[in-house]
Amino acid sequence: MSKLRVAIVGCGYWGQNLIRNFSELADVEVTAVCDFNLNALARTKRRYPAVELKQDFQQVVSDSRIHAVVIATPVSTHYPFASQALRAGKHVLVEKPMATSTKQVLELMELADKYNRTLMVDHTFLYTGAVRRMRSIIGAGEIGDLLYFDSVRISLGLVQSDINVIWDLAPHDFSIMDCLCPEDPVAVSAVGAKHLGCAFENIAYVTAHFASSMIAHFHLNWLAPVKVRKTLVGGTRKMIVYDDMETVEKVRLYDKGITVNHDSESRERILASYRNGDVLAPNLDTTEALRLMAREFIDSIVQKRLPICDGYAGYRVVRLLEAAQQSMELNGQPIELANPVGSRRIEEPALTAVVA
Amino acid sequence: MSKLRVAIVGCGYWGQNLIRNFSELADVEVTAVCDFNLNALARTKRRYPAVELKQDFQQVVSDSRIHAVVIATPVSTHYPFASQALRAGKHVLVEKPMATSTKQVLELMELADKYNRTLMVDHTFLYTGAVRRMRSIIGAGEIGDLLYFDSVRISLGLVQSDINVIWDLAPHDFSIMDCLCPEDPVAVSAVGAKHLGCAFENIAYVTAHFASSMIAHFHLNWLAPVKVRKTLVGGTRKMIVYDDMETVEKVRLYDKGITVNHDSESRERILASYRNGDVLAPNLDTTEALRLMAREFIDSIVQKRLPICDGYAGYRVVRLLEAAQQSMELNGQPIELANPVGSRRIEEPALTAVVA
Amino acid sequence: MSKLRVAIVGCGYWGQNLIRNFSELADVEVTAVCDFNLNALARTKRRYPAVELKQDFQQVVSDSRIHAVVIATPVSTHYPFASQALRAGKHVLVEKPMATSTKQVLELMELADKYNRTLMVDHTFLYTGAVRRMRSIIGAGEIGDLLYFDSVRISLGLVQSDINVIWDLAPHDFSIMDCLCPEDPVAVSAVGAKHLGCAFENIAYVTAHFASSMIAHFHLNWLAPVKVRKTLVGGTRKMIVYDDMETVEKVRLYDKGITVNHDSESRERILASYRNGDVLAPNLDTTEALRLMAREFIDSIVQKRLPICDGYAGYRVVRLLEAAQQSMELNGQPIELANPVGSRRIEEPALTAVVA
Amino acid sequence: MSKLRVAIVGCGYWGQNLIRNFSELADVEVTAVCDFNLNALARTKRRYPAVELKQDFQQVVSDSRIHAVVIATPVSTHYPFASQALRAGKHVLVEKPMATSTKQVLELMELADKYNRTLMVDHTFLYTGAVRRMRSIIGAGEIGDLLYFDSVRISLGLVQSDINVIWDLAPHDFSIMDCLCPEDPVAVSAVGAKHLGCAFENIAYVTAHFASSMIAHFHLNWLAPVKVRKTLVGGTRKMIVYDDMETVEKVRLYDKGITVNHDSESRERILASYRNGDVLAPNLDTTEALRLMAREFIDSIVQKRLPICDGYAGYRVVRLLEAAQQSMELNGQPIELANPVGSRRIEEPALTAVVA
Repeated sequence: MSKLRVAIVGCGYWGQNLIRNFSELADVEVTAVCDFNLNALARTKRRYPAVELKQDFQQVVSDSRIHAVVIATPVSTHYPFASQALRAGKHVLVEKPMATSTKQVLELMELADKYNRTLMVDHTFLYTGAVRRMRSIIGAGEIGDLLYFDSVRISLGLVQSDINVIWDLAPHDFSIMDCLCPEDPVAVSAVGAKHLGCAFENIAYVTAHFASSMIAHFHLNWLAPVKVRKTLVGGTRKMIVYDDMETVEKVRLYDKGITVNHDSESRERILASYRNGDVLAPNLDTTEALRLMAREFIDSIVQKRLPICDGYAGYRVVRLLEAAQQSMELNGQPIELANPVGSRRIEEPALTAVVA
Repeated sequence: MSKLRVAIVGCGYWGQNLIRNFSELADVEVTAVCDFNLNALARTKRRYPAVELKQDFQQVVSDSRIHAVVIATPVSTHYPFASQALRAGKHVLVEKPMATSTKQVLELMELADKYNRTLMVDHTFLYTGAVRRMRSIIGAGEIGDLLYFDSVRISLGLVQSDINVIWDLAPHDFSIMDCLCPEDPVAVSAVGAKHLGCAFENIAYVTAHFASSMIAHFHLNWLAPVKVRKTLVGGTRKMIVYDDMETVEKVRLYDKGITVNHDSESRERILASYRNGDVLAPNLDTTEALRLMAREFIDSIVQKRLPICDGYAGYRVVRLLEAAQQSMELNGQPIELANPVGSRRIEEPALTAVVA
Repeated sequence: MSKLRVAIVGCGYWGQNLIRNFSELADVEVTAVCDFNLNALARTKRRYPAVELKQDFQQVVSDSRIHAVVIATPVSTHYPFASQALRAGKHVLVEKPMATSTKQVLELMELADKYNRTLMVDHTFLYTGAVRRMRSIIGAGEIGDLLYFDSVRISLGLVQSDINVIWDLAPHDFSIMDCLCPEDPVAVSAVGAKHLGCAFENIAYVTAHFASSMIAHFHLNWLAPVKVRKTLVGGTRKMIVYDDMETVEKVRLYDKGITVNHDSESRERILASYRNGDVLAPNLDTTEALRLMAREFIDSIVQKRLPICDGYAGYRVVRLLEAAQQSMELNGQPIELANPVGSRRIEEPALTAVVA
Repeated sequence: MSKLRVAIVGCGYWGQNLIRNFSELADVEVTAVCDFNLNALARTKRRYPAVELKQDFQQVVSDSRIHAVVIATPVSTHYPFASQALRAGKHVLVEKPMATSTKQVLELMELADKYNRTLMVDHTFLYTGAVRRMRSIIGAGEIGDLLYFDSVRISLGLVQSDINVIWDLAPHDFSIMDCLCPEDPVAVSAVGAKHLGCAFENIAYVTAHFASSMIAHFHLNWLAPVKVRKTLVGGTRKMIVYDDMETVEKVRLYDKGITVNHDSESRERILASYRNGDVLAPNLDTTEALRLMAREFIDSIVQKRLPICDGYAGYRVVRLLEAAQQSMELNGQPIELANPVGSRRIEEPALTAVVA
């Protein structure tokens, strides 16, 4: 069986990771890499001497040997590159966020349909052992109904020159929430601040509102002295703390909670009982998430099926980004979300079986 | 010299701490304690056999031997009890928050003026070694201009039957911010959620907006599986992490930051330089904060001077609570703040010299 | 029913804790306290005005109202005070370590037998939720056979003027090992160093040797910059980390291990398989250990039964101290241990049911 | 200028790291790699297609193009391979520990002298930012005189089939102590235990004794549920905690200590004053240590000077291993150390200037 031929576009930090992971798939050939930066190309050549170098993206789309294109370039180029590649009959994997607007995402989805090609977005975190395990815990009803989702992703981070901290960091957390929470948010609000003389916010707080009493909140900051990547998921039965900075024991399941019995005699009186049970840190699969993501892209092409992170997944994340951006410009006014275009959600077995 | 005679009203958890601390001041006599709960009174009597027990607050205000009244009862009773005590010529210390509205606080301040008595609010955290040291670091200009103040105070906490999580927990963080940040906020917004079948929010996110690019944010939660009390203070020169759950090394001063040089050739190009210097955990005074607070109340009475946490301090915290409450009821709409009634801010020497 | 009347001898830091805990037992009256230090007595009187003060231990033993004596004085006085009290027909609880030699302990045991009185040693840690839970886990065979016991107890500690760091700190760890490990050590070796110009070692390393492949090791240090109280217990099936400095989750049970399959083809070849399972932090009872210890002393008197920490328990700990001391003086030469005088070991139900 | 041609012998985990680091030095060509395992060679070829593969070490020593040989094979082969390479006129870098006996190390040193070639041992940790910074702190007298060195290196580690845990792990800690402590130990004692049915100890405790009151201790364990790599260095003025498992802030300098004033009135009375000052976590250079080590090997060849980790350094570590092994076989009996063959110690500027 012949190998599937892939071109990687963008040889930056993440591009290098993609080249390494696709190279190590037995049924894939990384045929070409593309970058306008000659130094980046030269560095890649030293490590992967068999790979062809291309400085012009047109050479990639017009190369009939190439089956699939992986786009790891700045966000603003995702849409033009992906749409050209789809029109040229390539399968397309796009880095997160999928595009700069839901309009663009919907157009890419239409193109993928029209040309019958796979369109996938790289929501890498969904392939981590931690998120897959949390998904399986929550899916099994172990924590009960979700009450809140609280996420902090801060560090002395790379200041981006073209996007603010929400567009840079929140795609990770929005995709994790989208994967873990069965309910779709109905509105988004956000506030932020600009501190480094840049045109873009370097700190932001985003809230997602739900029809139920569920609430989600995101703290994003490029200018923090410590690196924190922590998510709390509160349920009616149990609660989860996901600390991605831990080397091991990233996920902890707390058998804790409060049950309130309202005293009928007295409106004011509350009889709360506190449950303090065991804490479990489940052993997690440590396969590199990017490897599984690359595998999934190839499998969805070969098996002619929708990938787990398809256009809908990309759409659901971009519409949150879009709304957060709009709210931040309106000083925190909540932006209502239309119903998502597609109701298809990741099937439990699909994601948890990704390794097997 | 005769001792100053104090009555403690409310013998709950905090009331017990107050009794213990006032009892151990050499120039103070805890003459009476007052609580409608007979069990609480009996328990107090076992430990402090010399103290008189009173079930009726009227007995306290009408007792001419008593110079000062300490009010550690539910929030809704702060105003009626404090106003009666002031009218009866007592000096008054009120637990945080000072009252349920700025209107009430202003009336208490007027009464204190009229009757020439000391009115003080117990913002205990201001007397901790950690906050005093941060105050001194910030006051000395060591971290430069403040950029953000981010506070998290969450735990599997005591569900209150009369107030929401903002009124319960935020007074601590609002008073710390008020003490550390030289600028007053101009607006407040807040969102929250109710989860335990109670009438009051058990989780809330509050944002304080400033005229400058400064932003402050507060995460408050009674339903978290882990206890977190962490504050980040970002400055133009350095940054502080204050982790109150650490046994020692609660305050860390990070010589970290980002300097962005904007490339004049290209609007998009950003040349950011990252500064990663040493981290310093200053040794902190470990005197019990409540002891210093009790000392300050007595000293301000004896020395006939304003206490550090006077009515203005109470007012500045209550107006933030009031605005946060209003915003939460309006689904997060920012509430503008009028100028604070008094511009008097805690003098640096006053607070840092509190021990000496 | 009349109350059991107790005298507390020694009003230092630990003595105060004992007074508080015995005072709060409903069926106990703390009749007297004894200390040669008048200030210590005065301070106690302020807190416990009903208690009689005695400066002379003879007044305690000759007071016929007193049923039981609790000895919390320096180690060198344990034997003379305890033996006098027993001869005077008192029940006796002695602080750890029980005495300065096994000879003394054996004599105290004989006296207790002769006068038919309860003799107990305060090995407080055995009553903590953490140790009781570990005991129950190990007793149930969950971690398999014990392979090693590694204990670290270090801090910037109180330099003692009469004993070295082994006699000060190791009784805790020796009693915990004695409680958790079913096997008795056959030899002890120890090394140490003196650093502060004192006559006694401030840092020491002790090893306990066993007939099986089990090994136990103890690191004790008064001169460490950080406070560490950590014990590892390795078993053939699972392993335990007990970190007493954690506020919660003090005990963690690791489903981890290595299975080595020796390749018969090649002597050198080892096929090791690593097991990385879940980590469990069991919820622990948080009742104050000293309260349970006090309760146990009273119960064993009233029920006329041996206490959990009887003379044998005291003996087993003191013989380790004695041997460690001897080895340290011989530059680390292992000191063989005779068989313990009594084979009675704490019964599982007795300890784990201590609360129920 | 022509490149220095290096052969790497042994393509295991560490061998791969060496290939990567030597490959990235501009003035070095990794000409050949050698391993008896064909799979390891094939894997290397995929990543470094220009490198020649050799299965027979004789082909390496007889290849006149090769200037230097890097030996990353099992310990028992270090001496035969290194001696052959030196005799063939190659410069030689050997993995730690340098050989299986001091006798072998001395012979290698003689060969290096005789053939006038560089002989160096890879004590990687000495090139870490953490150790270099501690060296500079201690060298500057900041912590005063050294009192103790306590090291813990434990994990669920790779069980070795040819050596025990001391020979596997202790070279790291012995080399760090050798670098940080100005005094040479005069004796070594050790105890250990075998648990996995193997012929070699998987847990061991080693003590190094000094002529002064200094004491050093090492806890080594392949069978621990958690990974710990922590070193305490106590000095008369300050103390250091080096925690290699921290991502940042690996080194903390504690301004803590105890001063004991002996009361002349009373032999028993000790007046200890405790100093609790600030804690400083200095910013550390994060250059990969192995890169600096590789650089130093090449530089010492080119500049015809002794490397920092020369034969003497290898000798000082192997003699501790040898003595520890001997003591363990004698059940912990202290083994006296002869004076080290060479008194040359790493010069402060040499090590701290390694980056500049």
